[in-house]
Amino acid sequence: MTFALHDAIAELATYNDDPAAGGITREVFTPTYERSVEFVSGLMRDAGLEVRRDAFGNLYGRLEGTDPSLPAVRTGSHVDTTLNAGRYDGVVGVLGAIEAMGSLLRDRRLRRAVEVVAFAGEEPRFASGCIGSRAVMGELSRADLDRLVDRDGMSLAQALAGAGFEPDAIETALWDPASVHAFVELHIEQGIVLESSGEQIGVVTAIAAPHDLRITLRGAADHAGATPMALRRDALVGAAEAMVELEKLAVGSPSGTTVGTVGVMRVRPGAINVVPGEVEFDVDVRDSDAEARQAVVDGFLAAVRVMATTRGLTAVVDEIVRDEPGTCAPFIVEAADAACASLGVRPRHMISGAYHDALILSRKIPVGMLFVPSAAGISHHPDEYTGREDIDRGAAVLGEVLATLAT
Amino acid sequence: MTFALHDAIAELATYNDDPAAGGITREVFTPTYERSVEFVSGLMRDAGLEVRRDAFGNLYGRLEGTDPSLPAVRTGSHVDTTLNAGRYDGVVGVLGAIEAMGSLLRDRRLRRAVEVVAFAGEEPRFASGCIGSRAVMGELSRADLDRLVDRDGMSLAQALAGAGFEPDAIETALWDPASVHAFVELHIEQGIVLESSGEQIGVVTAIAAPHDLRITLRGAADHAGATPMALRRDALVGAAEAMVELEKLAVGSPSGTTVGTVGVMRVRPGAINVVPGEVEFDVDVRDSDAEARQAVVDGFLAAVRVMATTRGLTAVVDEIVRDEPGTCAPFIVEAADAACASLGVRPRHMISGAYHDALILSRKIPVGMLFVPSAAGISHHPDEYTGREDIDRGAAVLGEVLATLAT
Repeated sequence: MTFALHDAIAELATYNDDPAAGGITREVFTPTYERSVEFVSGLMRDAGLEVRRDAFGNLYGRLEGTDPSLPAVRTGSHVDTTLNAGRYDGVVGVLGAIEAMGSLLRDRRLRRAVEVVAFAGEEPRFASGCIGSRAVMGELSRADLDRLVDRDGMSLAQALAGAGFEPDAIETALWDPASVHAFVELHIEQGIVLESSGEQIGVVTAIAAPHDLRITLRGAADHAGATPMALRRDALVGAAEAMVELEKLAVGSPSGTTVGTVGVMRVRPGAINVVPGEVEFDVDVRDSDAEARQAVVDGFLAAVRVMATTRGLTAVVDEIVRDEPGTCAPFIVEAADAACASLGVRPRHMISGAYHDALILSRKIPVGMLFVPSAAGISHHPDEYTGREDIDRGAAVLGEVLATLAT
Repeated sequence: MTFALHDAIAELATYNDDPAAGGITREVFTPTYERSVEFVSGLMRDAGLEVRRDAFGNLYGRLEGTDPSLPAVRTGSHVDTTLNAGRYDGVVGVLGAIEAMGSLLRDRRLRRAVEVVAFAGEEPRFASGCIGSRAVMGELSRADLDRLVDRDGMSLAQALAGAGFEPDAIETALWDPASVHAFVELHIEQGIVLESSGEQIGVVTAIAAPHDLRITLRGAADHAGATPMALRRDALVGAAEAMVELEKLAVGSPSGTTVGTVGVMRVRPGAINVVPGEVEFDVDVRDSDAEARQAVVDGFLAAVRVMATTRGLTAVVDEIVRDEPGTCAPFIVEAADAACASLGVRPRHMISGAYHDALILSRKIPVGMLFVPSAAGISHHPDEYTGREDIDRGAAVLGEVLATLAT
């Protein structure tokens, strides 16, 4: 080992704007974030990598190949966090890659260059997540940099400039897809699939993307005592019926991988003795199979329409987001399977239900992902945890995959 | 007419602590409330009534009978309001009674005395509603006066003393049930039963009471993308299933009058990409038929237990309130029917789904209630409205009922 991986994870966790809250708060482009990137840059240099940052603040560490004219292999993740979060999300993919490059790859004389990237802003400080990867894929315009603002009203352009980067030069950060052979991201699972099955490494075959809707149902806010059941237009029971239906549709989805969730709900007026006259709820439907996802959304909206008509409610549907799912490149999945085999680990093929920078990159570049287990699936929380052995195993498999792809 | 009823309703509405909000705020024992009681006292005196207040601040106006030894007939309601409320709830029953007593009863030389009461605090400034009627029924102890506090932490005892009443002498306010022949309350319906059927007067046969429960369901707050449907313990879908079941049980209740409502719901953590790990919701089940109400509550709790077991949730049930329903005295219902017939109005027999002072009194005294229509069922809201003709008709029917009962 070129550096103590677990010591580095612990030290990175000290770059924290709110230690009193118990978790880690390190949002992109803050002074604390910038200092943490300096720390990571130092780890890269210690591992023998050539360090640079692009105009958007993405950090690169490059291990040159024997044939610099070949498209490079890239890996990485992010080191920014949400508010009061854990210490592994993103970090494992960056520090694990640096560890693998320093210990496994440096002395192998690989044909292709290998680069580790720490993307700036995977977490949604500026409403949209994955801004670093969106920037290199050309999905952010100069106007977007002014439009996207954080909760204090600071624009992304202002934050970029404040951290010493160049909002007017972001096109210099663009990746030429032809120059990248493959991108592989190591990440904590953030779910309980691996833990439930007792497996140690997930090889991701596809990355789900969300289709999110806001549904507003309006009925009549009548007196809960004085209004007989037959005369009610109860928006909450209508929403309840719709939620039960959403679950049925997701469970019965032909892909077997669709998930449907209502995580946010507002009930108005919200008094024990008043029939709810208005309910607003957010629906999140995800799948790596776009067709199956659409079938669930369509079935759900049809059920909402029938329910609303039957109950005398009005239903307004607003689209919040609709992203295309991504597919992992078969040659990367094969390389991952082979790496697992060589290390005596049985890989579990799975989809990534969560969003990652790899999803954004998958639109133009061959991508793959490796998952390590998350204790109890907890993430974005101080209790987020992945064991040392799991992290070491993930970094070792990543190193083998990168070696195979770069050979 | 001894006074212009509608002018009096309009003038009473000017006693208002928050006119800017658009509605009426006149909570019991505030200086504004006390001034409004002075105004009502003046109306009573103008109608020829003898005015007094008891140690709890309840206001009485008495029209003496030819045989003062007979148990009296009482009528009335309340003139306090909730926050930003309407001008008719309670007020119609007090001012309508004064109008009826001044214009119809004063010259008839009735055998029994007739008294109109404005109960202090029907609305729940001090958490519990109907404190004036509870006080005269002996349901409030001296300790309760210290225990019950308003939203600013002022105790009922402090508020009473501040308004010039006597917390230590509330037992002097007790009614001797043997001294009351009947109590009749005129009130706006606060529902849409009369409006829906086009009827003008409701004769209440029973008063529903609530059995209220708080249900807390706990599951697991997993990532909405990364957690397959089969591995979820989603507290909100569980709650949705329970709400749909509650509706079915209420609709199918053998009494035909049970209502079940969930008006309050809190979803935690409340993020679009997190499966709800905890949901708390308040269930209000009401009926005038205690057995039918219990059957719905029992059926609902059984369904919650099965649902929770099936879904791997824990369910905690807390009782918020459980009041006994009240029955209206058949001789008062008959008198009301006769009064309607004499005035050419077709009465609709119905239950009161809402709480009233008459419910509290019904535990020891024969009670009856008359309803007049509420436009669109709106109540506790600036838009609360009952037409002049409906109010006049209600006061006229009330006058005839009181005359019959006092003869």
